[in-house]
Amino acid sequence: MYLSGKICKVEIYSDAHFMKLAYQEAEKAEARDEVPVGAIIVSDHQIIARGHNLTETLNDVTAHAEMQVITAAANTLGSKYLWDCTLYVTLEPCPMCAGALFWSQISRIVYAASDVKRGYRTVNSKMLHPKTKIESGLMEEEAAEILVNFFRKKR
Amino acid sequence: MYLSGKICKVEIYSDAHFMKLAYQEAEKAEARDEVPVGAIIVSDHQIIARGHNLTETLNDVTAHAEMQVITAAANTLGSKYLWDCTLYVTLEPCPMCAGALFWSQISRIVYAASDVKRGYRTVNSKMLHPKTKIESGLMEEEAAEILVNFFRKKR
Repeated sequence: MYLSGKICKVEIYSDAHFMKLAYQEAEKAEARDEVPVGAIIVSDHQIIARGHNLTETLNDVTAHAEMQVITAAANTLGSKYLWDCTLYVTLEPCPMCAGALFWSQISRIVYAASDVKRGYRTVNSKMLHPKTKIESGLMEEEAAEILVNFFRKKR
Repeated sequence: MYLSGKICKVEIYSDAHFMKLAYQEAEKAEARDEVPVGAIIVSDHQIIARGHNLTETLNDVTAHAEMQVITAAANTLGSKYLWDCTLYVTLEPCPMCAGALFWSQISRIVYAASDVKRGYRTVNSKMLHPKTKIESGLMEEEAAEILVNFFRKKR
């Protein structure tokens, strides 16, 4: 756009861009020997929270990437409701995280890989908030591969 | 029992005793203008965590009483698994908390009042860990009444 004769570049980042950053969070988890899952929350094209799984480091089953970014995003916004926010997460949320996302009334969730064993859909595919839009499959292969490789090394 | 000729009194507290303490936590929540739900985790007859709902105070949907005591109990035990532990909670856990309790593999849950609108059973009555025993109904009336009175005042 033009403003005072100068060109102002407005960059609107894509879902692919934000999922890549969520994936980078998963890589940080892997480097800590944590199950590699990463998450980002975006509001108004800005990242307001980023995090990765820390269940082993914190010795706490509740320390999933999603739980941390829900808390951090609410703190940043000063609101416990994550309206007009998008969660990018590398793995389908588990029932705990889906339950938290329900309470947050988040607008949109984009997840990469499906979790056929422990994903929320194994419990109830309709447990998210009716206002929440859900998309999946972006960077699915990479997000699944980092997990498969992690568990292969553990065997 | 007798030891060196002296009588040593060993008090084994009952479920009713611990639920009363969980209820006292709910009263603390009410005093803070929080939805009055309280929880206690007991291991080997000792309270290892106690807490109450703090979602408004902390501006955080994840700050349910159960989530806080799961984290605190794991911290006390130095283990993320709550084996040989009992959770006493004044209200049926929601799906988020049930999901967290699943991951914790907690041995036993005793809840007071049922939550027909937002309890975990509205999503999937089998979402808790297969190792977890569940009981309910203890102090049901008091636990429901404090909630009903709270919401009545809010109207």
